[in-house]
This record gives sequence, C-alpha cells and structure tokens, in this order.
Amino acid sequence: MQRNNGNLVGFRSDIKVVDCTLRDGGLVNNFAFSDEFVKDLYRTNIKAGVDYMEFGYKASKDIFSKDDYGKWKFCDEEDIRAVVGNNDFDLKISVMTDVGRTDYKNDILKKEDSVIDLVRTATYIHQIPTAIEMIQDAHEKGYETTVNIMAISKVHEDELDKGLELLAQSDVDIIYLVDSFGAFYPEQIRRLTDKYMNIAEKYGKRIGIHAHNNQQLAFANTIEALSNGASLLDATVSGMGRGAGNCYMESLLAFLRNPRYNLVPVMDFVQKYIQAEKEKGSIWGYDIPYLLTGVLNSHPSSAIKFVNGKRDDYSRFYQELLDME
Amino acid sequence: MQRNNGNLVGFRSDIKVVDCTLRDGGLVNNFAFSDEFVKDLYRTNIKAGVDYMEFGYKASKDIFSKDDYGKWKFCDEEDIRAVVGNNDFDLKISVMTDVGRTDYKNDILKKEDSVIDLVRTATYIHQIPTAIEMIQDAHEKGYETTVNIMAISKVHEDELDKGLELLAQSDVDIIYLVDSFGAFYPEQIRRLTDKYMNIAEKYGKRIGIHAHNNQQLAFANTIEALSNGASLLDATVSGMGRGAGNCYMESLLAFLRNPRYNLVPVMDFVQKYIQAEKEKGSIWGYDIPYLLTGVLNSHPSSAIKFVNGKRDDYSRFYQELLDME
Repeated sequence: MQRNNGNLVGFRSDIKVVDCTLRDGGLVNNFAFSDEFVKDLYRTNIKAGVDYMEFGYKASKDIFSKDDYGKWKFCDEEDIRAVVGNNDFDLKISVMTDVGRTDYKNDILKKEDSVIDLVRTATYIHQIPTAIEMIQDAHEKGYETTVNIMAISKVHEDELDKGLELLAQSDVDIIYLVDSFGAFYPEQIRRLTDKYMNIAEKYGKRIGIHAHNNQQLAFANTIEALSNGASLLDATVSGMGRGAGNCYMESLLAFLRNPRYNLVPVMDFVQKYIQAEKEKGSIWGYDIPYLLTGVLNSHPSSAIKFVNGKRDDYSRFYQELLDME
Repeated sequence: MQRNNGNLVGFRSDIKVVDCTLRDGGLVNNFAFSDEFVKDLYRTNIKAGVDYMEFGYKASKDIFSKDDYGKWKFCDEEDIRAVVGNNDFDLKISVMTDVGRTDYKNDILKKEDSVIDLVRTATYIHQIPTAIEMIQDAHEKGYETTVNIMAISKVHEDELDKGLELLAQSDVDIIYLVDSFGAFYPEQIRRLTDKYMNIAEKYGKRIGIHAHNNQQLAFANTIEALSNGASLLDATVSGMGRGAGNCYMESLLAFLRNPRYNLVPVMDFVQKYIQAEKEKGSIWGYDIPYLLTGVLNSHPSSAIKFVNGKRDDYSRFYQELLDME
C-alpha cells in the first residue's frame, strides 16, 4: 500500500490536530488556569478548527490531593461540562491517564455518561501490560484510545519493537511517537515514524507525534513525522508545556493546508493570554539548559530547576549533567 | 560519485562553521558592539573551534556614513587588526560585501595586505553579473570567496538554475543556499540543497547554508542541508540576527561530532553578553510576526517594525501582510 504522505500544496484529510495546552502546559503552572483562560481556549480551538482539546490528566485522588493542584490535574466530569456543556461542536475532548497514577476503573466513566471522547494512556516501556489493561477498560467503556510510550530515547530498539507489537495487538486506536526529552533529530524521527507506521499499518492503527522543543526541533520533528505518515499531531499554544515546551500551535496551523484550520483565533488567544501567563511566573520555552538535557537525552527536571532558580552558569550545569551520565 | 553526507556518530572533516554574530547581529544593533564584546567573541570562537568569524560588512563610505553605524558596518583593516593582530590562529576572518553597496575596488585590499581570509558577496538574482565581477576581483586579490544569493524563495526556478550555472562557472569557491525570509521547510531545503549540490559537484564548488529562524526551523534547515551535502554552516550566538535571527551556534556545536568543536566557551559567552545585549534594547528571535512573514514569504522588515513598536495585535498585522501580497 502506498502511503499518502502529503505535499506542500494539497492536504491530507486524515490529519488531526490535538491541543495539549492545558495538559502539558499544566505541568508548568500546576494546572492553575483561570476559568476564563480555559473557556476562551475551548472557544479558540473550535474557531481554529482544532480536532481534539486535551483538558488535562485524570489523576488519582488517592495519590494526589485536590488541594495541591488545579482542577485540570483531575478533569472531573462536572468541571469539563462547566466549560463545554454537552460539547455540541466538532471539537473532541481528550484526557490523559498515567499508568499507576490513575484510578481508571472508578474515574473513567462509561462513554454514555461522559463528554470525553478520547482517553490517552501515557506509559513507560516496562508498564505496557498495565497500559493495555487501561486501554481495554477505556475501549470497552466506549472511548477512542491512544497509547503514548514515553522516554523511548532511553529504550533499547528490540524492547521498543516488542512493546509496539504488544500494543498494536490491543484495541488501542492510535500509537504515539513521543520525544519526551526533546532528544531526537528529524532524521531519527523519520526512521522511528517509519518503524511505528510499519507496525500500525499491519494492525490497522494510526500514529501520532508528540514533540518537545529542547533543540528547537519540536515543529520540525512534528512535520517530519507528518510527512512520513503520522496523522495525529500534538501542539500547544505558543508551545506552552513542560521545560522547553512543545510544538507551537501557531506554526502547525500556519503549515497545514486544510481550509478547516484557522490561525487567527489562536493569535488572538496568544495576544490575550500568553504574555500575561508568563508575567504570572509561568516559565517555558527553549533555553540552553533544555538544549543540554535534550542533547544528553536526559529528563528535563534538572534543567527546569536550573531555569526556575534563575541560574545562568550554563557550563557548570553542563558539567553537573555529565557527572550524572 | 557518492556524497559523504555523514551520520549521527562519526563526523565529516569538510564541515566548516561560520560565526556571523557580528554581521547578521549587527543588523539588530546597528553594529554597536563594544570592543570587549568583539574581542571576547573572537577568543570564544578560537576556543570553540569555529572555522570562520565574520566581522561585518565592507560597506561603501560613499553610500553610508561612519557617523550612522558602528565600525563593523565597514570593517576597516585597522579595526579588524586591533582585535586579531595578525590572527595567528586557525580561525579565519570573513567579511561580507553587498552588490552595489561596496566600493570593492578600493576597500578590498590585496590579500597580502589584509588579515581577512574570506570575502562573501551577497547578491540578488538580478545582480549576478556584478556579483561575478566582485568575486573575480576578490579572487584575483587572493581571497577565498563565497556568493550568497539572497531571497531565492521569491525567484523562479528557471532563473535560479541559470543564475547558479553562471556563478558555478566563475572562480567562486562556495555557493550559499540562503533562506533570507525564513520561508523554507526542511523538505524544500532538501530539494534545494540537492539542486545546489548537483551544480557544485559539476564545477568543483562547495555549498553553504544560511538559515533564518522565522518558523523555528533555522537549526532544522541547517542540519537538513548539512545531511544533504552542504559543508559551510552559518550560525550566530543565541541566533542573534535580523528579525527572527539565525541558526543558534549552541545548537549547531552541540550537534556536530567533530572533537574540534567545543560548546563550553560559547555558553560562557552567552552567560556574559547575551542577556545584557537584550537589556540594551537589541530585539531578535522567534515571534509570531516573523512566523507570519516567513509563512507568507515576505521580507521581515514589517515584522521588525511591528515588534520594535511593541505591538501585539497579531491578527491585524496578518491582515496588513495579506493586503500587501
């Protein structure tokens, strides 16, 4: 079968844009978004033609306290409905469940009782059997499902192959290629997308891409995956997300040729909220410490600490990272 | 002949890194760099293993007044020598000459009287005959030469082919692929690099890449050109350059595997100078207005005016740009 990988003039109707601003951006501000921000983002996504809006995590209240986080850490049904009502729009609603951190049996309602459309399960490679249980649960309750295998830049190739094979045999709809550490160059994304696509096509699944901007490659890697067959594309407004952040929604919508997408409402949202969010103390986006953790294929936590601590002794930080290798 | 396009483990010895911080960055601050900045950048480049340092333009004093610009707009021999002495290091010295704006017959000395190694001629497609005269002049005086064809995203393919053919028949050493407006996506850079390489190989020339960061693709496009055969790579410290700026030197040195390159001195330079330069009022780097001029394949001047005017009404600016199409 010849893949339709698109070109720079026409468009592929299988492409879906997923706005993760609340979910990945919530990792920046502890999910402390104002109701106005969330409602306006919802309206913005509808007007922009975005396909999915991820509201946050379905975190277990046995593990995390509601006193410590904003409500989008938990995404209670009534909180989502307070924003979207019955969501009588084409925009679909997504939430993320973390393996081991979600009380999915209780907190994921049956689809007929929920306004959520898509449940995305984030898993490490060693948690795949549990992830599959969670996926089956969500699938049987009536949801679309994705699985997002994290930190694969640290995973041996043969383990990744086995994990992908296991997941592809489950009822999951979409398998995500995730560059958790912003460690991959486009030529690696090309090769990995090809690997994921080969398995996806064998089992009738689709592929998504979730990139981080440590090396200012989140957008480049997203369109690299897209032009090799990925069809679900994660982005956030102005790249808001943990550490160096994500693929910019602005760049992605400006790139896509499908007339359903409209950049203007997103620019208006940026004008109204993003500088204000930064002035509240939310820090994200490309910076040397994230470049270094990306290049060294490390978790961004040490870089986040460096940046939030207002340090600028980059060379010393680099030596600290090398000591941890 | 099989091209050696490199891989992610070994390195290509033909790669040369060109630091354009003073030249492209001078367009941001009117070449008002302190002597300390310039001397420290020179020492930084030596320690970092950078191959060429571009000091600025050789602008005509008949056209531009020395009262209106810092000295690196003109790059007088004695000003360069005040920094580099006889330049007893591997780092080579470069200057740029603009077609129609350089009194090259008088201001480019014979190589034996100059510490400059490389003369780079920037030309628009319609100026190529004059560019060739300038290149021949520099070549006969004893310099290495490059030609940088600007604004090719606005040029018809057959004109570009004819221009490249003419230039390849001259004595120029290196032909630059320049993305003046930050308009190209990596797949376009791939195709263009291939075009430039085919002509270069036919005439025994090399290819360089000079990218702009309007779509946060300057680094991605630079390594895309690199992995398709380009060997001279332009970068600036923290991307300092006109509008959205250039490929970050930090990213590029972190990517290259040749042990001659060293990221640490560049990070130390950033720590000492870059935040301070921004606090002096120098504005550059990715922002929505540059994304828009990039996507619309327009000169960044209107976006620079928007950003310097502290405007944030992006949607109105977008409509203004569309009106100019």
